[in-house]
Amino acid sequence: MADLPDKGTAFMEWYLEVLERAALTDKRYGVKGMNVWTPYGFRARRNLDAVLVREIEATGSVPVEFPALIPQTEFQKEKEHIKGFDAQVYWVTKGGASDLDIPLVLRPTSETAMYPVFALWVRSHKDLPLNVYQIVNTFRYETKTTRPFLRVREIHFFEEHTCQSDEAAATARVASNLQAFRAMARALDLPFVPVRRPDWDKFPGAFYSIALDIPVGQSRTLQIGSIHNYRENFSKPYGILFETPDGQQRLVHQTTFGLSERLLGAVVAVHGDAKGVVFPTAVAPYQVVVVPIVSAQATTDPRPAARTLASELTRRGLRVFVDEGEERPGAKYYRWELRGAPLRLDIGAREAAQGSATAVDRLGTKRLLGPEGLPEAVVAMLGEFDTRLYERALAQFRAAFTKATTLEELKGSTTVRLVGWCTQETCGHAIETAIDGALLGTPEGEVPFELGPTGPCLGCGRTEGVVWAIAAQPL
Amino acid sequence: MADLPDKGTAFMEWYLEVLERAALTDKRYGVKGMNVWTPYGFRARRNLDAVLVREIEATGSVPVEFPALIPQTEFQKEKEHIKGFDAQVYWVTKGGASDLDIPLVLRPTSETAMYPVFALWVRSHKDLPLNVYQIVNTFRYETKTTRPFLRVREIHFFEEHTCQSDEAAATARVASNLQAFRAMARALDLPFVPVRRPDWDKFPGAFYSIALDIPVGQSRTLQIGSIHNYRENFSKPYGILFETPDGQQRLVHQTTFGLSERLLGAVVAVHGDAKGVVFPTAVAPYQVVVVPIVSAQATTDPRPAARTLASELTRRGLRVFVDEGEERPGAKYYRWELRGAPLRLDIGAREAAQGSATAVDRLGTKRLLGPEGLPEAVVAMLGEFDTRLYERALAQFRAAFTKATTLEELKGSTTVRLVGWCTQETCGHAIETAIDGALLGTPEGEVPFELGPTGPCLGCGRTEGVVWAIAAQPL
Repeated sequence: MADLPDKGTAFMEWYLEVLERAALTDKRYGVKGMNVWTPYGFRARRNLDAVLVREIEATGSVPVEFPALIPQTEFQKEKEHIKGFDAQVYWVTKGGASDLDIPLVLRPTSETAMYPVFALWVRSHKDLPLNVYQIVNTFRYETKTTRPFLRVREIHFFEEHTCQSDEAAATARVASNLQAFRAMARALDLPFVPVRRPDWDKFPGAFYSIALDIPVGQSRTLQIGSIHNYRENFSKPYGILFETPDGQQRLVHQTTFGLSERLLGAVVAVHGDAKGVVFPTAVAPYQVVVVPIVSAQATTDPRPAARTLASELTRRGLRVFVDEGEERPGAKYYRWELRGAPLRLDIGAREAAQGSATAVDRLGTKRLLGPEGLPEAVVAMLGEFDTRLYERALAQFRAAFTKATTLEELKGSTTVRLVGWCTQETCGHAIETAIDGALLGTPEGEVPFELGPTGPCLGCGRTEGVVWAIAAQPL
Repeated sequence: MADLPDKGTAFMEWYLEVLERAALTDKRYGVKGMNVWTPYGFRARRNLDAVLVREIEATGSVPVEFPALIPQTEFQKEKEHIKGFDAQVYWVTKGGASDLDIPLVLRPTSETAMYPVFALWVRSHKDLPLNVYQIVNTFRYETKTTRPFLRVREIHFFEEHTCQSDEAAATARVASNLQAFRAMARALDLPFVPVRRPDWDKFPGAFYSIALDIPVGQSRTLQIGSIHNYRENFSKPYGILFETPDGQQRLVHQTTFGLSERLLGAVVAVHGDAKGVVFPTAVAPYQVVVVPIVSAQATTDPRPAARTLASELTRRGLRVFVDEGEERPGAKYYRWELRGAPLRLDIGAREAAQGSATAVDRLGTKRLLGPEGLPEAVVAMLGEFDTRLYERALAQFRAAFTKATTLEELKGSTTVRLVGWCTQETCGHAIETAIDGALLGTPEGEVPFELGPTGPCLGCGRTEGVVWAIAAQPL
């Protein structure tokens, strides 16, 4: 098969071709932007979901599921929110042959589904905090070009919604979400930067928004998640009140935390290379692929040994596939590199006789493992693989950010830019015009690169009250 | 709190009240028949799904997910199918402010979403069998009275769809599905009877349908799943063809297997009692609830021992909750009986000092466990609990079926009835009229009761070619 397009110079062509060849999605469904989750893609998604569930439940969040359809009357209660979503919602207007009395919105996100019920669930300070999350599909009538996992019309979505007793508790929840996301992203070997969005780019209805951004392709960025503090913006129209210990009625402060299948797109986009996908072990549909190398000349059939090893690794909790297809070994190597399996174990007659295996990881490390302690060596090699995958991603991440000190330098940027910004909106827009993109906002908390002292604001040249900001062309 | 309604004489009142008190669902959402999955209900559902996934994947079925929206043009390709669903689908007609060019149906089931893509996936006999399943929500504009888990408008749905090379392979897949369902139902401690539906009651578009039925309440039955053989009824309009080894193009034979959240309703309906829900261990949100009995007089605080025991049981893969709330122990006992936890472990000062626990299972068995081998004893007691729960359900199941030999006897039946039937449609309808319900069909394969030789057909009195059939009032 022809080589993949070059990732460096033709990122999106490379991305789309990799997804198709690795059979992670099928775009041939009859509705644009709604794709089929293939068996391989679904398994990756299931593993991704398991990471999100594990980390969010460790923070005390509990799972729920609210209906997919929202009555128009509830949907329209918060004015900024409805303004932000009105143009991109699907409307259900008929049931059977008859018009519905009240049209229903197919949820684009679940604030307006959940909050009328939160108003019933929250009564007293004893009911707080209320930290619930759901993993569901949401729907947006997207008008921009759709791309599998990155911009779709049916979105596999993770959303946490919380009610807190006051602003301090809400701020603490935002910090807890950020901490949980650090653990999730680390499991995916993905470095990221939390960015406080400027006011003109926050979530519709939010008091502030912290986006989780990564660089992809040349000078582009991808928002792979977001955490919002709503303050009382929603609790007021939805009447989510609680009684304080001293008997007063007060509005709850709310936060949300959103993630989606974009994380899977990010995994492909960040780790993939000229040979195809590279899955971190946490998400890989199969962490280990065992390839028995059958030869007509050899006296030992390696298949029983391959199956036995696979069973042993499965018992240890690994996801293992034995590729017993009839193709040549070379065709199998090619396919599992393309599909991103972290580790391949080749078992020929010699390995079968010895009880060993020739291990090759997806980054090219090759080792003869066993016969002593073979399963432990496999587990250790997977761990090393993740470490090196993260380090490679981190080096790429750091190289993707460069500083710019004048608006002129922003033109035709081939990296994401770190700029000085006085926080005035006019200067923000001047920066956006210069880079032909967006001022993503200001890095929040710990970031994976050195910032150092800021220079003057690129917009007005002021030197006081200047902060670092990130400018890029978001995907 | 007042006693629950009597399950024997007021089944539906009891059922609805139990669900509400156990907080398994919240019906106060703004769309009738669309309910909120509460944290407790969601956890039960998640455990149920895990059972279905385990058993279906053991048969070689692989997970996929198809979009929720189906273009009208695809939806209308199979005539019987569309006739069966036309009156109960939701239509999406608008995106943002504009009318969609082609209206979209919110899937009521996924034949018409999947099969156009199956036509692309299946090319050669080497692509067969294609056995895929998905767990998604489906939508039906239900006009009958809705009941949580039993009849809802947004349905949590399991659907397997397969393509086979010929009728023999399709028949084998139906048998494999039935075998898989036996394992699923056994995990839920639910006896059931497979019933081949009469032709006038099969799934729209099916060649034949095998329903999985259970008795609930007095003389009522509940269909908790179904397996269908479509033959070529769908592969023809959707053009799902494959090339045989000798180069011919042939239509695939298809089967499907459907289950839903009704299984959770069945678990509540079958096992529940005057004290509330009784969960089999496979589905229980918490299999073990540990209650530390704190006393101001005692010198030993039992809470550290309770937490240590809980951690140890969690490490062994059990789902454990430590109830450290401030209520009296009696209030906790009452709540966890209501909510159906299989096993409670009480730890007072004496138990804490000894390293033991007083175990009480949800069927009333009480035992002092430990200090030696305490975790093993807990696991063993859960196993015994499941065995006794299944035996109790099986005794109730058998008592729910009685034979009837005349149409007269069917009137006002207080059990499900086994009747002789000559298989003619007119006699079937005569039986349906007499019982004021349905002829569910003929038991298929192994059934959990003694049938013996049939008497004459209740409709026409014929004695030749008479089979056993089941007549009841389906819920």
